[in-house]
Amino acid sequence: MIIVTKVKIMVKVKTKFKRPPLILPVCLIGANVEEKPNFQTIAWFNMVDYDPYLIGFSSEKTHYTNKGIKENKTFSVNIPTSKMVSVTDYCGLYSGTEVDKSKIFDVFYGELKTAPMIREMPISVECRLKQTIESHNADFFIGQIVGVYIENKYLVNEKPDLKCIDPLLYEDGFNNYWSLGKFLAKAFDIGKQFKHQRK
Amino acid sequence: MIIVTKVKIMVKVKTKFKRPPLILPVCLIGANVEEKPNFQTIAWFNMVDYDPYLIGFSSEKTHYTNKGIKENKTFSVNIPTSKMVSVTDYCGLYSGTEVDKSKIFDVFYGELKTAPMIREMPISVECRLKQTIESHNADFFIGQIVGVYIENKYLVNEKPDLKCIDPLLYEDGFNNYWSLGKFLAKAFDIGKQFKHQRK
Repeated sequence: MIIVTKVKIMVKVKTKFKRPPLILPVCLIGANVEEKPNFQTIAWFNMVDYDPYLIGFSSEKTHYTNKGIKENKTFSVNIPTSKMVSVTDYCGLYSGTEVDKSKIFDVFYGELKTAPMIREMPISVECRLKQTIESHNADFFIGQIVGVYIENKYLVNEKPDLKCIDPLLYEDGFNNYWSLGKFLAKAFDIGKQFKHQRK
Repeated sequence: MIIVTKVKIMVKVKTKFKRPPLILPVCLIGANVEEKPNFQTIAWFNMVDYDPYLIGFSSEKTHYTNKGIKENKTFSVNIPTSKMVSVTDYCGLYSGTEVDKSKIFDVFYGELKTAPMIREMPISVECRLKQTIESHNADFFIGQIVGVYIENKYLVNEKPDLKCIDPLLYEDGFNNYWSLGKFLAKAFDIGKQFKHQRK
């Protein structure tokens, strides 16, 4: 008698993918181009340094926004809620050379005067350009944060309420938008349990 | 008779926050330091360019990992699931100078030979260091992706299954871990509806 046992072997292998399916935040980069506000959807952005805090983001060299950032040396980062998925995608689909995006939002300015921010979005960050790193296809802009603007209704006990902000997330490389799930644990804390278990 | 109507005015104002509460992906950066694998938890990473794809991340100059990356000119990016929150936090809480992290995971190597990758995590990315940009407190390392490793069970119809990968997310500046929510819409598509409405 032969006993056949079906064993499914799971192996981690090199795939055909050129980049990982990262879940990324989504923002609209605001810049004045030819003195008119323009907004470009970007997911390739993150913090770069602290004290002072720097934000870096990557934008294709040919993009309309890049021109404005180089002119004014300022830009903004605006965080949409998941309900703003349609207008956010729109600002990524169409260039400022094709459509006028200056009237879509209620625009306001901060102390830098030339970084247009979006009043309807829960969070806006005003940045002064500090450095531009040229890559092969993209400009990597690094800006110093000069102001973080949040509407009161998105704060609870003076802290941002992420459930209320409900940020839009993006699956890189596979073109899907996702929402935020649930709170899991405190960082710089839950890991102490693992340390305890290791002993 | 006086009629009092309570009107709650919502104003978007400059806050005391120095950086926005971004929801970011979390990874463990793998590097051999003094010929032993070490892993550091990082949320300040993202894509920088395409063709070839580049990943950039920021790591404090004093970090143990930086030494290994500068030595070997390689590193890995490993994406944990939300269930790995405790060990992920642990690798961010304690430096490789304090604890030996070389035996926590089942480590494997790819073609670069010196970028340790974590078999237990759904996604591992092998990178060759291309450029290091010095900021005031951090090194910003830019690496070229040479391989994306994913276990079969995280793929459906040859595409990554984000529900199954269940990536861990991090709320920057406020030390909270979150899970991924639900699929919302297709990118580069839903925005066409907004264009239609605008006409």
